[in-house]
Amino acid sequence: MSLIVTGTIGIDTVHTPHGSAERVLGGSCAYFAAAASHYAPTRLVGVVGDDWPEAHRKTLESFSGIDLGGLEVRSGSLTFRWGGRYFDNMNDRETLFTELGVLEEHPPEVPEHFADSRYVFLANTHPAVQLGLLEQFPDRALAVADTMDLWINIAHDDLLQLLSAVDGLVINDSEASQLTEERNAITAARRILEMGPTFVVVKKGEHGCVLVHRDGTAVGVLPAFPVEASGVVDPTGAGDSFAGGMMGHLAGSDRTDVGAIHEALAWGTVTASCTIGSFGLEGLRTVARADLDERMSAFQSAAVVGPRPAAAN
Amino acid sequence: MSLIVTGTIGIDTVHTPHGSAERVLGGSCAYFAAAASHYAPTRLVGVVGDDWPEAHRKTLESFSGIDLGGLEVRSGSLTFRWGGRYFDNMNDRETLFTELGVLEEHPPEVPEHFADSRYVFLANTHPAVQLGLLEQFPDRALAVADTMDLWINIAHDDLLQLLSAVDGLVINDSEASQLTEERNAITAARRILEMGPTFVVVKKGEHGCVLVHRDGTAVGVLPAFPVEASGVVDPTGAGDSFAGGMMGHLAGSDRTDVGAIHEALAWGTVTASCTIGSFGLEGLRTVARADLDERMSAFQSAAVVGPRPAAAN
Repeated sequence: MSLIVTGTIGIDTVHTPHGSAERVLGGSCAYFAAAASHYAPTRLVGVVGDDWPEAHRKTLESFSGIDLGGLEVRSGSLTFRWGGRYFDNMNDRETLFTELGVLEEHPPEVPEHFADSRYVFLANTHPAVQLGLLEQFPDRALAVADTMDLWINIAHDDLLQLLSAVDGLVINDSEASQLTEERNAITAARRILEMGPTFVVVKKGEHGCVLVHRDGTAVGVLPAFPVEASGVVDPTGAGDSFAGGMMGHLAGSDRTDVGAIHEALAWGTVTASCTIGSFGLEGLRTVARADLDERMSAFQSAAVVGPRPAAAN
Repeated sequence: MSLIVTGTIGIDTVHTPHGSAERVLGGSCAYFAAAASHYAPTRLVGVVGDDWPEAHRKTLESFSGIDLGGLEVRSGSLTFRWGGRYFDNMNDRETLFTELGVLEEHPPEVPEHFADSRYVFLANTHPAVQLGLLEQFPDRALAVADTMDLWINIAHDDLLQLLSAVDGLVINDSEASQLTEERNAITAARRILEMGPTFVVVKKGEHGCVLVHRDGTAVGVLPAFPVEASGVVDPTGAGDSFAGGMMGHLAGSDRTDVGAIHEALAWGTVTASCTIGSFGLEGLRTVARADLDERMSAFQSAAVVGPRPAAAN
C-alpha cells in the first residue's frame, strides 16, 4: 500500500571517535525512505538546492523502492546542511553547525499523483509544515509524525495542533520527557496520548523502544538489536531508519491495528541496526531484504522472553 | 535442587520522592532469598547483631521457602545499617549513611548440612569473603556472584580472583563499565568473560538486561517489565531480586545451560518488578507464585518480537 514520507534532505558532516564523513547524504526524509523502501514502495517529498551533489541523487536512485517524483531541486537555493560530533559514548552528540537553507523557504509541492497516499510519515521538520503537508493526503489510512526538542521549545502550539491531527507519534525518550515533564517513558507516552494520537512510540536508542496504544491497556517493550561497540560507527539517522522500517512494514502489510504496530517495532529495530554500522546511508544501501529477515531471526532468538515452546529448546 | 545465598542482611532506611521507610528489613541476601524462595527452597547464610528486630525475623520466616539454618545472631554485635535517598528520577540515589557493624567482623559460619548446596549465589559483599564462602561448597553445579563499585575500587585483586572462580557474574551496567572501561554493555560483558566467568548478566535497571555466554556467540537482550511511574515506589533490592528470580529458576529446574540462563533472565525480570512496587520485602512477601506466572504471561505479550505465530494474532 502506498507509503509517503516528507521531511528534510540534507548534506551531513559527521565526526565520531572512530572517524569522520564529510558532506554525505542525510536528513530525516532520506534515512526514512531508504529504510522503508526495503518493505514497501516509498514516495519521497523533499526539497534541496541546486548545490545538491549529483552523487546524492544517484544514491537515492539506487534504492529501487524509492519514488523520487516529489523531489524538488530548487534553483538558486541552498541545501540544508548539518554538522555534528559524537562523544566517546556514541549516545550523546553536539551540533557543530546548521545551515537551514531551503528549509527556510516554502515547503516542497506534493505531486498530484501522490495525493492518494494511504500511509503518511511526517519526518522531523516544523510542525506547521508537517500539518500543511498532512492535509494534502485526504485518503490516508495512517499518519505518523516525528518531532524534536527544537519544536517542543519554539513551536509548542503548532506541535499540539499536529498531535491532535496524527494517528501516531514516534519520539525520542528525552524529547518525550521534555514534552510531558515526565521521566518514565511509559507514563510520558500515556500523557502524549492525551494530546491526541492513537499511539506513541518512544525510542530509547541503545535501550530499545516502548509502545503505548489507546486500544487496550497493554504496553509494548522491546530491547534494541544487540550491537557491540565495534558495530556502532555512526548513529546518525537511526531514529529515522527505525521509523522507516516500522512504517514500511505497516504499509507493506496494509495493517494499522495494535498487533501490527507492535510487530512493526521489531522491523524498525533491525532496520536501525543496519544504519548505525556505517556512515550515511551506506548500511541501508548494502543490506538486502534477505539480510533483514535473517537479522530479524537473530533478534527474535536474542530477545526471547522466558519459557520457550518445547520445540525451540 | 538446593540453592544457597550468602550476603548482607541489613536494616534499611529509604527516602524517595513518594515517601520514606525507616528501619525496614533489607540487605542483598534478604532480597535475594525472598525472591528465590518463590522458585526453589533457598538456604540463607548471613549474620546480624542482637539489635536485629524480632519483626524482621518474622518477615523472613513468613517466606516458607527460606531455610534460616544459616542465620547467625551475633551477641554484642550491631546489624549492618544503610540509609539512602532516591532522586526524582528514581534511578539515581545517594547513600546517606552506612554502618557496617557486624560486616566488619568475621563472616558467618556455613552450617555443615548446607555444604552439599548445588546452586550458590554470592550476593554483594567483600570479594575475599565471597571467595572464602564459595570454597565451602565443593559440590556446586553453578556459582554466581554479584559485586559493586566499592569492591572494584578497593578490592580489585580479590575481585579478579573471585571472577576466575565463579561460573557467572551479575553486575550493574555502570559497574560493568567501571570494571572494563567500556561503555557498551555487550562489549563490557565480553571483556568480563575474559576475566574468568562462563557468563555475565549486565543489569540495566529500567532498561532491562543483557546476557553474554561463552557457549556460542549469541547474546541475550531483554527489556525490563513495563512499569509506569506510579508503580515505582522503592527500587532498593531490585537487582538482588532479579538475581534471586534468575537463580531460583535455575535451581528449581536444575539446569545450567545457556538456554536455561536466558529463560531465567525473564523470571529475574518479573520478580524484580514485584520488589519495586513497595518498600522493603513487602512486594515479594505478598506475591504468590501464580501472580508471578501471570506477570510472566503479561511480560511475554508486551515483549514479543516481530512476526508472531498465526494463532497468536
